[in-house]
Amino acid sequence: MGRVHNFNAGPAALPREVLEQAQAELLDFRGSGISLLESSHRAPEYAAVHEETLTALRALIGGTEEHEILFMGGGARSQFALVAWNLLRAGEHGDYLVTGNWSQTAVAEASKLGEARVLWSGEAGGFTHIPTPDEYTVAPTATYLHYTSNNTIRGTQYPEPPASSAVPLVCDMSSDILSRPVHCDRHALIYAGAQKNLGPAGVTLILIRKSLLEQLRDDLPGIFSYRSIAAKSSLLNTPPVFAIYLVGLTARHWLDRGGLAPLAAANARKATALYAALDESDGFYRCPVEPSSRSSMNVVFRIHDESLEPTFLEESRAAGFIGLKGHRSVGGLRASLYNAVSEESATALVEILAAFRQRHG
Amino acid sequence: MGRVHNFNAGPAALPREVLEQAQAELLDFRGSGISLLESSHRAPEYAAVHEETLTALRALIGGTEEHEILFMGGGARSQFALVAWNLLRAGEHGDYLVTGNWSQTAVAEASKLGEARVLWSGEAGGFTHIPTPDEYTVAPTATYLHYTSNNTIRGTQYPEPPASSAVPLVCDMSSDILSRPVHCDRHALIYAGAQKNLGPAGVTLILIRKSLLEQLRDDLPGIFSYRSIAAKSSLLNTPPVFAIYLVGLTARHWLDRGGLAPLAAANARKATALYAALDESDGFYRCPVEPSSRSSMNVVFRIHDESLEPTFLEESRAAGFIGLKGHRSVGGLRASLYNAVSEESATALVEILAAFRQRHG
Repeated sequence: MGRVHNFNAGPAALPREVLEQAQAELLDFRGSGISLLESSHRAPEYAAVHEETLTALRALIGGTEEHEILFMGGGARSQFALVAWNLLRAGEHGDYLVTGNWSQTAVAEASKLGEARVLWSGEAGGFTHIPTPDEYTVAPTATYLHYTSNNTIRGTQYPEPPASSAVPLVCDMSSDILSRPVHCDRHALIYAGAQKNLGPAGVTLILIRKSLLEQLRDDLPGIFSYRSIAAKSSLLNTPPVFAIYLVGLTARHWLDRGGLAPLAAANARKATALYAALDESDGFYRCPVEPSSRSSMNVVFRIHDESLEPTFLEESRAAGFIGLKGHRSVGGLRASLYNAVSEESATALVEILAAFRQRHG
Repeated sequence: MGRVHNFNAGPAALPREVLEQAQAELLDFRGSGISLLESSHRAPEYAAVHEETLTALRALIGGTEEHEILFMGGGARSQFALVAWNLLRAGEHGDYLVTGNWSQTAVAEASKLGEARVLWSGEAGGFTHIPTPDEYTVAPTATYLHYTSNNTIRGTQYPEPPASSAVPLVCDMSSDILSRPVHCDRHALIYAGAQKNLGPAGVTLILIRKSLLEQLRDDLPGIFSYRSIAAKSSLLNTPPVFAIYLVGLTARHWLDRGGLAPLAAANARKATALYAALDESDGFYRCPVEPSSRSSMNVVFRIHDESLEPTFLEESRAAGFIGLKGHRSVGGLRASLYNAVSEESATALVEILAAFRQRHG
């Protein structure tokens, strides 16, 4: 099949040019005579890749001077546990804003290692709403406030980082990092699995404020300690070389195209067009999320007659659209509009939504 | 530069045919219209890859009926901690045979989470010797006996799994798995970072006896629990998709060429030829390892006049040989002879060793 419209929720679309470069370099990496997949992580070829990736990420994110950038394996789900393990000492607690399934899992994993308090939860409202600052009060005694900036399953997103007073702010930014300005200065710690906007599955990015790093616990295994990972510039053990390389190529790709501002504008245009198509469908399609809480990355929706959803998936698949099925825990439909999903793909989706409605409305 | 002789200690050489297949499939994975790097881990394309990898590994390793096969991120170093965390309850201890730097690190990381006792250590002897069964007695109270089957830095290797009486045997097999028969039946748990014989950096393989799995602790975060990873067939979170794919291609590659028996024979021939070249050099080259403890995977050696070593590295590099520098912690020289290092490369190395000796002897 030719190149399809990839609306996967993650792992997700990567820029075509990045994949082409990876393919071209796969057998003989930049004249080294070997593949990067076979390169020692101590070799000069990889050292250059590691540095280039860090340089591109710092340039793209901006304002990272006070933060260390780390790479770890294990996915964002490991970070649910590691945040609590690294930050919480006996008697301390972290506060959590629970806006969906991944926030809930973050609380559950952290609770194995420390006290994770649910400060606010949207569960009773079906996770269709992102709290505003007047809906919660962070305990000044909290060691950190944790939130999930974008909720892939429920299709919600914080319009901006939550207020946390003086309490250090920790963010799982897995599904919207690099989709808009990151506000690094407002966060003590940001983590993100790579497989949405950063690159392929297999590496997790951590941005941690240097002053916080110095205050962390040092009684945990080195491989799980931000301090020891930082002390070795993410080379404490063999890093996921190829995934870091692709993160670097992807960051460079967007940097060469103007950085986060044009990306954010394009993402807003894609999401606006799609939400408009749903909202203006006379009830044929329905987005369950409150307008002010809607995600620009994951647009979740239903068809008024839910029995038509399998038909929609089948017909759209045949027309070259993949990844439109909702998460298995909630059902329905979902279109993920990550950075590498083109405006052309979003427009094409709006068109097939209209055509489907005409046929079945 | 043309294809070089890759003696990297890990990440290390991969079969050329595997890399060529990965390159050919990189942009459009088996007619899906997307790269596997962009594929959802819940998509049928990846489900097939996941199953194919497991099937190929089971066929290649053999005798795995009593074991679950798991994939995790984070590298073997994570397993140093996770073995103790999953297996040790309060008051219990694990016994460790310490044969090199990685065994020492395994003890250090495990000690953060439980009692890790050094049962035997070769440190005083410079780690040039692998203990025989009469040199240690496993405590019947030990929850497990841990050993490192091959020591990349010191160039030693167990000729066969150590005696452990009835105590469950745990092995870090990162650097020699698939190089010879695995003896799965003698191990309760085997783990291995992929980046030597299995595939690229970024995934860790775990073989765990099903009966052990049922006895493990269940009070740790799910992402670090063998039980919860096994319960979800290694899809508890997004796995490192591309690394698992390459592990599967590599396993299939060796399976198609006769499996572990011919691999073991080829590995023995490569190592025998190289050790002979060192031993028969009239003292020009020297291998510090006792003959009965020598590794077939990592041949460490010195030049009698150590000041010639930088010259050897320079000249061999210019002749297309890479990865021959010893680990930075011990210096000297090292040739790693993993599965994908051809007999031609080993022969070529023997030849340049002879030529260098002629010029400088």
